[in-house]
Amino acid sequence: MTFVSIREVAPRDGLQNEDPVPADAKVALIDALGRTGVRRIEAVSFVHPKAIPQMADADEVWSRIERNPDVRYSALIPNTRGAQRAIAAGFREIEVVVSASDTHNRRNLNRSTEESLDDITGLIPLVHEAGATLEVIVATSFGCPFEGDIDPARVAGIVARVRADGADRIAFGDTTGMATPRRVRDLLSEVRPDLLHFHNTRGTGLANILTALELGVTEFDASAGGLGGCPYAPGASGNVATEEVVHMLHDMGIDTGIDLEQLIKAAELAEKIVGRPLPSGVLRAGPRTRVV
Amino acid sequence: MTFVSIREVAPRDGLQNEDPVPADAKVALIDALGRTGVRRIEAVSFVHPKAIPQMADADEVWSRIERNPDVRYSALIPNTRGAQRAIAAGFREIEVVVSASDTHNRRNLNRSTEESLDDITGLIPLVHEAGATLEVIVATSFGCPFEGDIDPARVAGIVARVRADGADRIAFGDTTGMATPRRVRDLLSEVRPDLLHFHNTRGTGLANILTALELGVTEFDASAGGLGGCPYAPGASGNVATEEVVHMLHDMGIDTGIDLEQLIKAAELAEKIVGRPLPSGVLRAGPRTRVV
Repeated sequence: MTFVSIREVAPRDGLQNEDPVPADAKVALIDALGRTGVRRIEAVSFVHPKAIPQMADADEVWSRIERNPDVRYSALIPNTRGAQRAIAAGFREIEVVVSASDTHNRRNLNRSTEESLDDITGLIPLVHEAGATLEVIVATSFGCPFEGDIDPARVAGIVARVRADGADRIAFGDTTGMATPRRVRDLLSEVRPDLLHFHNTRGTGLANILTALELGVTEFDASAGGLGGCPYAPGASGNVATEEVVHMLHDMGIDTGIDLEQLIKAAELAEKIVGRPLPSGVLRAGPRTRVV
Repeated sequence: MTFVSIREVAPRDGLQNEDPVPADAKVALIDALGRTGVRRIEAVSFVHPKAIPQMADADEVWSRIERNPDVRYSALIPNTRGAQRAIAAGFREIEVVVSASDTHNRRNLNRSTEESLDDITGLIPLVHEAGATLEVIVATSFGCPFEGDIDPARVAGIVARVRADGADRIAFGDTTGMATPRRVRDLLSEVRPDLLHFHNTRGTGLANILTALELGVTEFDASAGGLGGCPYAPGASGNVATEEVVHMLHDMGIDTGIDLEQLIKAAELAEKIVGRPLPSGVLRAGPRTRVV
């Protein structure tokens, strides 16, 4: 393996789980990330502003950023209305979430997993007619905070169904950081995603990525500074920090296209925007090659 | 692999890198850890009280703890005087540090690596005559914050010398968190330790342990809560957190003898003793099996 593709999710997944910040800050963060060499950025989500006020200015943010031609920007959407807005805004890479856990899906989307899958069946042709692609993110793939372990066969069933419906890509989301190297092996021996999205809630983030690399996965989500997702307490880690992932990969001789020093600057900006220390060790300590 | 042996280092390596705490707190922490099922505890160090005031009460702490017959307690010593104190106190497992990096050794011990190795040559018979064993911890084995990368051949040379001198055990210390999965493979393909001591400064702690497990290492240091070693800033991780290590190992079906819930209680005590949030994710979020 010589190249791993990172999708930077701090502007969307990160900021969506923080107190709302101004559009200016979002634009500055997306632009800073766009200059790091990262090839993909999850930029915004088109959700109802009452449900998620953090993303109410998605259209404004998207209209104001520098469009780096070397970066693929994507948007998350919850439903048909969101897909229409994303398409109208010009997005050609669209993501939708369904939870493998029925309980989590009901709490998150107010419908059963089955009902969400029916929605996705209807969404796919709409997205394709606009010349865009749809990635289905299977949340709670490695466990659910309400139901506990999720049977890999259940995840495999969801993947089979949405692939049959024409979904272009599949991601597995480790929504509350329940993935471990063992669970990664268990699930991936049953069914393979295109991309993995890990949280570092219990310290296993990089160990999970290492395991997935050994199994041949080459696409990962990560968030500058580890921004976003503190479901338990301040200081608890959310997303794996992009600079920690890139630091480990580059040390292994695996390219990401990313300039680590530029990325650390973008993570410093993310930290400034949210006004609290972010959990990333590489942000704090610098790369191992930085001698004093 | 069915069993991994953890040495709990919070009472010594952890507290030595914090502001001094009362002997009562140290005794309480060692006793709480002794009830978790952990088989080994690095309890104290016998160093000059002016150099390291945190450990000035080593004799008092050691005399007051409950001696759990299922636990092996060890002490760190810097020199012959420390070894004599440890032996007089009744320790039968003694550790001494030498840095692979000459610059780090000079800053830490005010002598060259070669001079420290000469000291160890003299120390070994003294320890053996008392019926005790000596573990040599090779600090900065995975890199030095002053010199950068350390040639694995240099570490191998140190190991060969101290083994020839009669050292009973060898540990590799990742003193400032410069180890990565790639560096673990590089060094261990050259020379094998009995035990590995990782820090989680750059997020790779568990990924390093996973790599070492694959290479057959079965002994690791870890510190409850991730206590100790914040060389850069508050919130930066020091030692790998014992509960994160145990959480990952148990999930893999590898026993440690440790009751994870008891260990989390001991880590909560460690947090209370130092009066600040410790960096452990499992301490914060609980094990993945804890459903809400």
